[in-house]
Amino acid sequence: MKMNEMPSESGGEALRYDPEAVKQFTCKVFECLGVSCEDARIAADVLIEADLRGFECHGVARLYHCYLRVKKGLIETSPKIQIDWRTPATGHCDGGNGIGMVVGWHAMKTCISRANETGAAFLAVGRSNHFGIAGYYTSMAHKSGMIGIAMTNASPRVVPTGGMRGVFGTNPISVCFPGKKEPSFLLDMATSAVSSGKIDVVLRKGEEVPPGWVYPSVRPFLDSEDVAPMSVFQYPLGGGEKTGGYKGYGLGMMVDIFSGVLSGANFGTRLAASKRPDAEAGIGHFFGALKLSGFREPDAFHADFQELVRDVRSCPLEPGVEKIHIAGEPEAEMRKENQQKGIRILPSVLEKLHRIASELDIKQLQ
Amino acid sequence: MKMNEMPSESGGEALRYDPEAVKQFTCKVFECLGVSCEDARIAADVLIEADLRGFECHGVARLYHCYLRVKKGLIETSPKIQIDWRTPATGHCDGGNGIGMVVGWHAMKTCISRANETGAAFLAVGRSNHFGIAGYYTSMAHKSGMIGIAMTNASPRVVPTGGMRGVFGTNPISVCFPGKKEPSFLLDMATSAVSSGKIDVVLRKGEEVPPGWVYPSVRPFLDSEDVAPMSVFQYPLGGGEKTGGYKGYGLGMMVDIFSGVLSGANFGTRLAASKRPDAEAGIGHFFGALKLSGFREPDAFHADFQELVRDVRSCPLEPGVEKIHIAGEPEAEMRKENQQKGIRILPSVLEKLHRIASELDIKQLQ
Repeated sequence: MKMNEMPSESGGEALRYDPEAVKQFTCKVFECLGVSCEDARIAADVLIEADLRGFECHGVARLYHCYLRVKKGLIETSPKIQIDWRTPATGHCDGGNGIGMVVGWHAMKTCISRANETGAAFLAVGRSNHFGIAGYYTSMAHKSGMIGIAMTNASPRVVPTGGMRGVFGTNPISVCFPGKKEPSFLLDMATSAVSSGKIDVVLRKGEEVPPGWVYPSVRPFLDSEDVAPMSVFQYPLGGGEKTGGYKGYGLGMMVDIFSGVLSGANFGTRLAASKRPDAEAGIGHFFGALKLSGFREPDAFHADFQELVRDVRSCPLEPGVEKIHIAGEPEAEMRKENQQKGIRILPSVLEKLHRIASELDIKQLQ
Repeated sequence: MKMNEMPSESGGEALRYDPEAVKQFTCKVFECLGVSCEDARIAADVLIEADLRGFECHGVARLYHCYLRVKKGLIETSPKIQIDWRTPATGHCDGGNGIGMVVGWHAMKTCISRANETGAAFLAVGRSNHFGIAGYYTSMAHKSGMIGIAMTNASPRVVPTGGMRGVFGTNPISVCFPGKKEPSFLLDMATSAVSSGKIDVVLRKGEEVPPGWVYPSVRPFLDSEDVAPMSVFQYPLGGGEKTGGYKGYGLGMMVDIFSGVLSGANFGTRLAASKRPDAEAGIGHFFGALKLSGFREPDAFHADFQELVRDVRSCPLEPGVEKIHIAGEPEAEMRKENQQKGIRILPSVLEKLHRIASELDIKQLQ
């Protein structure tokens, strides 16, 4: 159900849709492609959660790309996900080239149930695909009273300090601590200066990309899919060498080692495969769950965490700032708003969803 | 043994000393203070390793501060370090207000031996003190074929995005992957834009602090101990809001939650205690070890890691850049040089070492 119309931050006139309706539509698309009912629901839930939290570029906007790759046989709809616990707390997961959201969900679920016994459990995951937002998986741990960790590698676009070409993906890290009250702490960040999605938004508005976002070798542009391609190289978090960019580069490489090298997936520039129309993406992830009570009584932890939040909140504010946010708080606020008003879908994304619907002969999103 | 004299990057004329001689001197100081022979050796080794790697501000330069606090009874020389494994893979460590290097060494050692059985092991450590460089502990894991993780919180000086006062420490993170060949990967980074030590170096040279390093509310200055005090607030990694500084702030807060909140240590602005002349520092750390073979055959890991290094090295270089470094490589190169030429000690530091020697009536460092 279309909920209303409004000018979007993302450029163009975004429409708002009932998240439940978009989820059902997405689920239907996956089912039509041969995905089991349960897995389709999981994949749709992960994607729409990204839209709810305001990470529009990782939400239903990604469905078309996934749809095309499934149709081409580049992603398995009934993957054989194999988990091999090589020690009580660590193991390897072969994602069977499944949909990233499905692989990620199963791997994280397994980590959580194992950490319930051992206190901590980790899986390095190979042979997977784009998995949506890392924060979805750490939120799963959160609900089980666990600290969650999730990372993934991605197509190469971030320049290592001193170099002039993209080697690493925007390689996000998410860490979430279970909270009792709002806000809890949910870090979900690309290790690049800004995510690719933010660059897309600025370009769609026809504005200048702020200094420090992209590596100044190429004038940033949008491709035919309305996103900045891999050739628009990005700075790591911290920007250039003088301002600590080597730390962002170090974090990005760390994510690639955990996700790619440790799992036997693709890594570095090999991940260009994830954009090629004739190869498995071979993306790798890393998941972990640690039991909060394995370190400290949860009540004592929660009380001290609230104390730390009060500490941050009592900091004098910069002019024009209303409140200092805790990691994850802007997304939680956005989620409430989007739940009520509907999630925003750009006309260009909508057009692709309509194309899918007509190709699969299912009811269009309305 | 004084090895030679040279103008130092740190400003003033630094002298080079045989690392073994400085280690023996440091060890002797700790023993005179009542530290056991074994613990004194550990503490000295951690400090001098910092000097060897070029982290001069975390090396023997810290001895005087530690010495004063021990003399005042603010640090225990024979701490009762209590480790409570609350699950097979996670636990709590009470550092007994011991010397940070001693507490850190014991906690990491215990994680490594436990991870040998379980695949992964983690300790949240409370009631500790300044522990030197985080990378020392992750190097310990490295030598045992483990992935090492170490973090610590520190005195408040980093401004959360939107605020105007320091709430978090420079809160470093280190992650090290075991390597077979050089270079291996050893990330050891403050979550601030730059470490406090770099700011000290620039100020000592009488130069302008580059933009993005310190929060522009206070003109940076050195205190009577020749370091920038806590009131010289710093930007988190990423700088201001526009360039992703909220990510650095998020990482810094994450380190504080792992190290302080999870362990029951001090956190946030409470860590000002670490600079007060009448209170336990109450610093917290977090350590982890994960067995490499618990994820993948080490030989396959090492081969792919070398492949990733080649990938980075084949990136076209910026003008004036000779080689793209892998995290930890500059420090490894510096270590070789310092091992040979001697570690650098500033005259102001040397003067304090002489003061300690004369107070304890031991032989001066020569």
